[in-house]
Amino acid sequence: MIPSKKQYWHIEPDRGLLNDPNGLSWFHGLYYAFFQWNRFEKNHSHKEWGYCTSPDLTHWTFHGSALLPDQSYDAQGVYSGSALVIDDALHLFYTGNVKQDGQRRSSQCLAISTDGQHFLKTGPMFTTPDGYTEHFRDPKVFYAGGKYWMVIGAQQRTGKGAIVLFSSSDAQHWNLVGPLAQSEACQMIECPDLFLIDDTAVLLYCPQWRDNAHDLALHSFAAYKLTHFDTAAGTLDDRNLDDNQHLLDQGFDFYAPQTLQTPDGRRVILGWMSRMEDAQEAVFCQNEPRIHCLTMPRELFIKDGKLCQRPVRELSTLLGATVSPERSDSGLRFAPSHRYFRLMLEAPTGCSDLELSFGDGEWRFIYDAQQKVGTLTRRSWVQDGEETRSFALETCTALELWSDQSSIELFVNGGAHVLSARVFPTASQPDLRISGIDARTTVQVNELCMNEN
Amino acid sequence: MIPSKKQYWHIEPDRGLLNDPNGLSWFHGLYYAFFQWNRFEKNHSHKEWGYCTSPDLTHWTFHGSALLPDQSYDAQGVYSGSALVIDDALHLFYTGNVKQDGQRRSSQCLAISTDGQHFLKTGPMFTTPDGYTEHFRDPKVFYAGGKYWMVIGAQQRTGKGAIVLFSSSDAQHWNLVGPLAQSEACQMIECPDLFLIDDTAVLLYCPQWRDNAHDLALHSFAAYKLTHFDTAAGTLDDRNLDDNQHLLDQGFDFYAPQTLQTPDGRRVILGWMSRMEDAQEAVFCQNEPRIHCLTMPRELFIKDGKLCQRPVRELSTLLGATVSPERSDSGLRFAPSHRYFRLMLEAPTGCSDLELSFGDGEWRFIYDAQQKVGTLTRRSWVQDGEETRSFALETCTALELWSDQSSIELFVNGGAHVLSARVFPTASQPDLRISGIDARTTVQVNELCMNEN
Repeated sequence: MIPSKKQYWHIEPDRGLLNDPNGLSWFHGLYYAFFQWNRFEKNHSHKEWGYCTSPDLTHWTFHGSALLPDQSYDAQGVYSGSALVIDDALHLFYTGNVKQDGQRRSSQCLAISTDGQHFLKTGPMFTTPDGYTEHFRDPKVFYAGGKYWMVIGAQQRTGKGAIVLFSSSDAQHWNLVGPLAQSEACQMIECPDLFLIDDTAVLLYCPQWRDNAHDLALHSFAAYKLTHFDTAAGTLDDRNLDDNQHLLDQGFDFYAPQTLQTPDGRRVILGWMSRMEDAQEAVFCQNEPRIHCLTMPRELFIKDGKLCQRPVRELSTLLGATVSPERSDSGLRFAPSHRYFRLMLEAPTGCSDLELSFGDGEWRFIYDAQQKVGTLTRRSWVQDGEETRSFALETCTALELWSDQSSIELFVNGGAHVLSARVFPTASQPDLRISGIDARTTVQVNELCMNEN
Repeated sequence: MIPSKKQYWHIEPDRGLLNDPNGLSWFHGLYYAFFQWNRFEKNHSHKEWGYCTSPDLTHWTFHGSALLPDQSYDAQGVYSGSALVIDDALHLFYTGNVKQDGQRRSSQCLAISTDGQHFLKTGPMFTTPDGYTEHFRDPKVFYAGGKYWMVIGAQQRTGKGAIVLFSSSDAQHWNLVGPLAQSEACQMIECPDLFLIDDTAVLLYCPQWRDNAHDLALHSFAAYKLTHFDTAAGTLDDRNLDDNQHLLDQGFDFYAPQTLQTPDGRRVILGWMSRMEDAQEAVFCQNEPRIHCLTMPRELFIKDGKLCQRPVRELSTLLGATVSPERSDSGLRFAPSHRYFRLMLEAPTGCSDLELSFGDGEWRFIYDAQQKVGTLTRRSWVQDGEETRSFALETCTALELWSDQSSIELFVNGGAHVLSARVFPTASQPDLRISGIDARTTVQVNELCMNEN
């Protein structure tokens, strides 16, 4: 029997298709994670906001629908957006999508909730300004320097991608500031997010390559750049999205991330854990009521001029019993009770060649000390063979792996590199093997346990 | 261990509180059953329309939210209403409820769907006319005599209940015809429904007694009367709701019924299977994620000048193996595998005293041939003791009982009387005993089996 793909501790809906995280926020003592949701089918035929809440970023309660496409201005989709608490009310900013006679129209819309359950739509705030096509979406709103700011992912009339900036004194009436940053390479930017960590402006964005002649999406990934934001002028020091562009995640499945700020000031990111192709989706969700989940919440921080990620500390409440290893000449073998567990590996002086493998070939991570390359491999579930993701890795001193029923998230060297991947469960007996470690390397594996809270 | 109350074959949501059936309809090859739903809590703090669909009135797929309270005109509740297919689009008519500063305002609203998944709100059609308080709700729309008609449950300014009639040529612009029927006894009418069976107009309505000084609901039940509807004048022959008033159900739990017409012309009714008090609700849903369900769909027909009900024939697809009885001096004992089963008892020449009992006192039905009274008794789950419902019953020639995990629906004499009741499961081993039957009486018990369809 093939094991279920139902995740144990990640956010996923009870049915249908989830994509982008939306409206991540903290309101009245709870974290809110909204998400793009098709309740009806495991495809993109319907877009609404579903949501769940959590007191601790770890234990989530699923609430179903938050915003339905029920108005003339959002009838073909309540598209992605963000949330901000203003005057003790949760403000949801989203793109209302309309498609009529093959024509797309976008407007940036607002819904307000005073109780976190009833979201009162107040309607469109503005439509697409001159100079941009109707690929104009994903408003992310933040407050800085005495003003509200909104960044929007856009396609310029030139056919190239851009991020557009608006400002407002009340978060309802918006003034176009102008293009905040532009790309000459890609045809669209999706899901921008701009925030400060100390004095550094972190810009998250998803460059998307499109076939403009046929209005088709071709390829995309999640990126970031570090720069400076002038809140007086509303400008970035570095406005070139193609330059100083870094991947947010080195794995297979990470897209459309969004951040929120916790009450104690941490900047936390969640992404959509998918870059699956249609064929992968079709096989992955066979006999499953749902497809896709969000990544775990991760705290962002800057170290050595690089954006790093680590699991939010609240997740440690999931840690259960330590799993004892079986030792052999070739290394260690762990047999946790379930497919969900956490591994911590520390090699203070650096690993030589290292191999971590799971479930008889479901996935493995190899560090090649000679080539200075890290490689994640997973077995393809669409055809015979494997897929790999490799990245430059000077030394390998620490691995932190969080596994769930059908995904892994691997933090390398304290979160300097992160790799997210859905995996296709085939092994009925979890079996984690580690080879290539020496006596100075410590390894600990813990069960994960979702106690009712 | 107390058995779960989760129903096996009735419509109930996965969580929260369900009440009135709404928008019952047949559209694009599926039956639609919407319902009043609070997803968040097992109380009445939130009102939206949830829904499920079925190809056969038997196997239902739950879809979650259909209409959310997300507009200024329905922010405090998408209240009850009905559906009608017009020009190949499903039209949903509902009451938008607003409460501000303790003041209630009602408007009758419309939402339209062309696909049965996206319900586009077009806004309020009209507000409460002069002569009525804001207890003005539950629009039921039908087509007859070349016009659309809407009946609405109302409270007159006099403080007395009424049903108000509107007419329209397009089902969007409505003209007040006037009060269709009135009560001198009660303070409000809820959930009216008017339809024809052959030439007889059947008027369903729920008289509600209120404390008008404190605007509180006190008592209510589901009733009907048979009369004649003049589609030219928009009048009933008998406009007195207090006269010729009959109970729709002799049991404990039946309210706010609504009907739909099947494609083959049958008139089918579903009710909210509850008249529970707060204290009953509190105990019943302890350790359960949900409370309340709809009744089974029942076909209405008129026999001997009386409105009768029988299970829709599609439910017979649930019938599984016949359960063999154990015979003893005192009668028959059946031990079906589950708490859900169907019993058919036929006594062509009439029963003398008869007793049907289940689960060591959970419930029993007794026919007293001398007193000519039928009595349903169930064990109270709030206090020690029992509750009873009795009704006049000249002879008892047939019983048809449909049991689910925590409810029974009993059809007496071919549906001349129906008794609906939630029951509190305590018996772990289902055990149905029948005494007082003679050799001419046939009894058959069948398991119910919800095959995937």
